Amino acid sequence: MDGVGIVTTRFYEWSQCLHLESGAHLGPLTIAYETYGELNAAGNNAILVLHALTGNAHIAGRNFPDERYPGWWDPLVGPGRALDTRRYFIVCANVLGSCYGTTGPASINPATGKPYGMDFPAITIRDMVRAQKILLDYLGVKRLVAAIGGSMGGMQVLEWGFLYPQMLDAIIPIATCGRTTPMQIAFHHVQREAIYADPDWQGGNYYGTAGPRRGLALARQIGIITYKSDPSWNMKFGRNLVDPRKYFQLEGQFEVESYLAYQGRKLVDRFDANSYLYLTKAVDLHDVSQGRGNYNEVWRDFPCPCLGIGISSDFLFPPYQVQEIVRMINDSGGHARYAEIDSPYGHDAFLIEFNQLAAIIQPFLKELRPDLAA
Amino acid sequence: MDGVGIVTTRFYEWSQCLHLESGAHLGPLTIAYETYGELNAAGNNAILVLHALTGNAHIAGRNFPDERYPGWWDPLVGPGRALDTRRYFIVCANVLGSCYGTTGPASINPATGKPYGMDFPAITIRDMVRAQKILLDYLGVKRLVAAIGGSMGGMQVLEWGFLYPQMLDAIIPIATCGRTTPMQIAFHHVQREAIYADPDWQGGNYYGTAGPRRGLALARQIGIITYKSDPSWNMKFGRNLVDPRKYFQLEGQFEVESYLAYQGRKLVDRFDANSYLYLTKAVDLHDVSQGRGNYNEVWRDFPCPCLGIGISSDFLFPPYQVQEIVRMINDSGGHARYAEIDSPYGHDAFLIEFNQLAAIIQPFLKELRPDLAA
Repeated sequence: MDGVGIVTTRFYEWSQCLHLESGAHLGPLTIAYETYGELNAAGNNAILVLHALTGNAHIAGRNFPDERYPGWWDPLVGPGRALDTRRYFIVCANVLGSCYGTTGPASINPATGKPYGMDFPAITIRDMVRAQKILLDYLGVKRLVAAIGGSMGGMQVLEWGFLYPQMLDAIIPIATCGRTTPMQIAFHHVQREAIYADPDWQGGNYYGTAGPRRGLALARQIGIITYKSDPSWNMKFGRNLVDPRKYFQLEGQFEVESYLAYQGRKLVDRFDANSYLYLTKAVDLHDVSQGRGNYNEVWRDFPCPCLGIGISSDFLFPPYQVQEIVRMINDSGGHARYAEIDSPYGHDAFLIEFNQLAAIIQPFLKELRPDLAA
Repeated sequence: MDGVGIVTTRFYEWSQCLHLESGAHLGPLTIAYETYGELNAAGNNAILVLHALTGNAHIAGRNFPDERYPGWWDPLVGPGRALDTRRYFIVCANVLGSCYGTTGPASINPATGKPYGMDFPAITIRDMVRAQKILLDYLGVKRLVAAIGGSMGGMQVLEWGFLYPQMLDAIIPIATCGRTTPMQIAFHHVQREAIYADPDWQGGNYYGTAGPRRGLALARQIGIITYKSDPSWNMKFGRNLVDPRKYFQLEGQFEVESYLAYQGRKLVDRFDANSYLYLTKAVDLHDVSQGRGNYNEVWRDFPCPCLGIGISSDFLFPPYQVQEIVRMINDSGGHARYAEIDSPYGHDAFLIEFNQLAAIIQPFLKELRPDLAA
């Protein structure tokens, strides 16, 4: 059989309150997740996959037979694939603050009986990781072969290494950084502004209405630009026009423009604008040195082996940022190595270049845990 | 005396109609301009400076004694400076479609007695150049030592080389391209969308009201990000916070965010939103091969010597784009050379790195026209 077939998204209801990094409390929590493969008796063959900004727990297979596309990392997950379900128990959970089943701003606030909206507390990458730890405890996972993910997922990977190193054989951060840069924050800032500026956002109390469709679509369009690259746009669109007869009209469009508009509309149909605000903010707050001391020194005695993966054409998370993590871990006496995806696709390459990812990840995982036979 | 002192913006009223590249006609025209130095008797010592998207004709000196800042290229223009006013007659005109005195969407449409708004015809880089030619004819300029400018200014420089080569000793395009790429178009697209999405834009008929302040400010903020660079943001702001007590609040801001907001507000106070739409569109339509044949072949017999200047850290107009122009001119039998500004400041470096610009431009100009003594 190819791939993992039909999978079901499950929901773990946790009746307690999570103490957030901000000091606030949030609970009870629902955590949406999917698993693939079987947990072994020792509970030590799990791999945790962490998703990016608008991602979800559905990384592989289909939730129903005629689902149009399989999960977002499908080519990497399944029998014989890099994340081999004959060998590993794969887990992915929708992050805290998102809108794919895990508690977020669109969830009902038990204190009011209405959606949280902007009463949802600010959450951080560490909060996401703590929620995942609660889920893994529930699932009986004692040890992770690896935590792996790209972009915001890679930030969670790093925080896993700081918060629960004793539980990990290794971390695999991809196309990410140890702390977000002002340029990344700037790009998120304008995306949030696009949502805030939409009158239909209504201070975040738009549930039951259409909501800030235009603002969220614009935010997404800005985001999409940062996930691509100059060469990938050139290859895909060049200067092709939608309608050459409208060349000299303000409303005339190049194909790249109608593509962006399409991508904007597509996100609006599947994502919550307030979640977009909270998750981009969580990314902006990401800094592994926050509350831990000097950024250059926190990697001292970082106990997790690390395989950092960069993307050659990524201008949002340039390769130097992953290289920097690897260098600082090694300079601090740890064990890290670097691999690079050679791709014209920019930041998005971690969702595209499956063959290169598999060739980098698969041997590393086997080397880590030769005891886990298929 | 330092610099050019007090200068006056002048206005040339041209009573005819300009035949635009689109086929439309526009007129009468007002062209706002400034000049520095004296035109010689032969009318052949002029240098034309072309400004960028939100620029204007005021490149040097002050328009009134206590004007806070001098013109935008002041360190390059004056007695003994790279554009030496003892030697050259320097001209800069506000481009067609802008809002600094030259006819644009905010100007009165003689057919209606009201501002053009979106009835203003689409204009192109070539239309801007043709309007400049009308002004130079009026001023008695027979020959340009050079046309020089960065970004959108560099596009006009290239079109000068194509449209009026017999009038030029050389062209100096800076941080620009022979045709805009889909990534550049994409960034302009989201900026225009930000304006269109603002209800106060009112289909462009906002004159007499506050207008789309929030939309234009957002457009500017997006633009500003593309004019800077990852290293320049790091140097300037790092992860500094406006108010550390608001760290865990959605409305808490990093300094880079309040800087962007400030830059957005600043542009709103000085620029017209419809001009922003028309000028970004003109840039998107920029393609020196439009109507002239194959992009790689139009440089054949390009008769103008060319000094192309790139900026090392520019990700909006990467250095390869200027290098490409230089290579194609040389491959076609022309005479071009390349110089690079080594700077962390990104696209903006052509408005910052005056010493490097002077060191590149000054000897080139002297070599071009040794007959012009100071």
